[in-house]
Amino acid sequence: MDKFINKYNTYKREVENIIRLSIDKDFPTCLYQPIKYILDSGGKKLRPILTLFVCEALEGNYKNALFAASAIEILHTFTLVHDDIMDNADTRRGRETVHKKWDRDTAILVGDQLLAIAYKTLLKTQHKYLQDILNCFTNGIIEVCEGQALDKDFEARNNITTEEYLLMIEKKTAKLLEASAEIGVIIANVNTKKYKDSIKNFALNLGIAFQLQDDLLDIIGDEKKFGKTIGGDIKQGKKTFLLIKALELATQKQDREKLLYIINQDKKRKLITDKFISEIKEIYIKYKVINITESLIKYYITSANSSLMSIKSKQGHNLLKWFSNMLLERKY
Amino acid sequence: MDKFINKYNTYKREVENIIRLSIDKDFPTCLYQPIKYILDSGGKKLRPILTLFVCEALEGNYKNALFAASAIEILHTFTLVHDDIMDNADTRRGRETVHKKWDRDTAILVGDQLLAIAYKTLLKTQHKYLQDILNCFTNGIIEVCEGQALDKDFEARNNITTEEYLLMIEKKTAKLLEASAEIGVIIANVNTKKYKDSIKNFALNLGIAFQLQDDLLDIIGDEKKFGKTIGGDIKQGKKTFLLIKALELATQKQDREKLLYIINQDKKRKLITDKFISEIKEIYIKYKVINITESLIKYYITSANSSLMSIKSKQGHNLLKWFSNMLLERKY
Repeated sequence: MDKFINKYNTYKREVENIIRLSIDKDFPTCLYQPIKYILDSGGKKLRPILTLFVCEALEGNYKNALFAASAIEILHTFTLVHDDIMDNADTRRGRETVHKKWDRDTAILVGDQLLAIAYKTLLKTQHKYLQDILNCFTNGIIEVCEGQALDKDFEARNNITTEEYLLMIEKKTAKLLEASAEIGVIIANVNTKKYKDSIKNFALNLGIAFQLQDDLLDIIGDEKKFGKTIGGDIKQGKKTFLLIKALELATQKQDREKLLYIINQDKKRKLITDKFISEIKEIYIKYKVINITESLIKYYITSANSSLMSIKSKQGHNLLKWFSNMLLERKY
Repeated sequence: MDKFINKYNTYKREVENIIRLSIDKDFPTCLYQPIKYILDSGGKKLRPILTLFVCEALEGNYKNALFAASAIEILHTFTLVHDDIMDNADTRRGRETVHKKWDRDTAILVGDQLLAIAYKTLLKTQHKYLQDILNCFTNGIIEVCEGQALDKDFEARNNITTEEYLLMIEKKTAKLLEASAEIGVIIANVNTKKYKDSIKNFALNLGIAFQLQDDLLDIIGDEKKFGKTIGGDIKQGKKTFLLIKALELATQKQDREKLLYIINQDKKRKLITDKFISEIKEIYIKYKVINITESLIKYYITSANSSLMSIKSKQGHNLLKWFSNMLLERKY
């Protein structure tokens, strides 16, 4: 396994280096200072690593995919900056968000500029199917925006079904992982539909599993490993998969009232105590919401991994399998 | 002249048609309803027409440039939606702005999505130099964001020089016109540096003249033809070229105080009367600010038009000359 971790870390550094070099100016300072700040804020670089690993698993040269992979990470950073404005988030990766450290208008402009820089970086790719790569990248943005629009729309609604929720996370999270993988396939020059569909399916299912697990870990995670406060989603009134499922299943009036309190709380007051979070966890256990979520995650993981069977190279198969395990087992 | 107006109107309709067809879905409604609203809000389509006219003036087929031209208009619309949030603008082209009719988060997302749709539309272009076209387009976005960042930065400063101001409008307005023209050159397959530089110079100088004229018309324009309220910039406390120049030249204390009042007014109170606007106009006349601005506009127009001399086709030369006149004489 060590060799995969080493590979991950090596490629991560290469991506970080390209991202650093993508900003070659300082003026206007009011724009490039926050851009450098946010691009230098760490992060696991999961999406670019997926692009590079897919390319390599299909016997392509990962170096040909470095600009595209870095562009995907810059694109992802753009979504974080704008999402943080909309979510009124104060911190991101342990540091102040751009709109908090500077202001709203700066954060809007920083996001816009990041999107342009993402394209600029992507356009350094030399490939005969560059137009396909660009279309794939552009569709990824369109899906992410649609997903974020649905997410915002759900905030105002109390009758979201689990199917609607799954569609939202597919668009908001999984489609960009799918695009990351597809670009890896194209750059590896394995442009056959069968291969591409398998790898896309792998990434899409992995992405949904990843987001569902994020929802689950908010309630059963280990704070130290997870890196977020347990019950944070409940405190923020987030409509997670678990909450939506619990509202679907809970029959007792007092349970329903508690669940609805999460949604209807005044966000500014933050009266949610640790005791309340424990009570919600009890409700989730009572109606088997945790088990149900775990089995759905398992379904998506199995779907993802079975898509890897088409990969000819054993080494390539193992690399992506390792990526999938690393992604999903990181937090317990 | 009639034949040029007819051409303008015909091409404008073709661009409008492509823009309409660029949105082929309705879901999520909360995203695509405001996108359709803003894309259908009129506008002169100056930038796409410039692309098409440049292509045709260089003996290219304008039809090959229709997707790129439409993409530039969609990109321009993205900048308007995000700028309106930052400027707290209530109306745009006689209708409510997106963030006013819906909300801030919707407007952020609508802008983001418009940028992706712009690229999607651009990527329908079939051209051997597509990568050059995309780089040119992307650099246009980068310049616009830098220009907007400078504009925001200027709001907090009272010591802006006219040179700083000219750099800001070059980036915020003129560079996108330059990119529009350059894309027309590339698509016309006239990829020689000499030609490209002339046409870029034409568009850049035209763009600066256009913005300076916008500043001037706020004080000497005909409300009906101009389509905006006279003195609107003064009411909004905008640091226009005229105001910056007047602050540079005004020596009398009472004049300076009035000029500084424009900048330092509390935007919410709006205590600026028509009488006050007349007084500012008098100050501008007293220090020859209006004459000075007119002569600077003339300088940029002359620079723009003399760049057209390199165009071989007389018809092409006349077409771009007509465009330049139309752009700059529209409002008196």
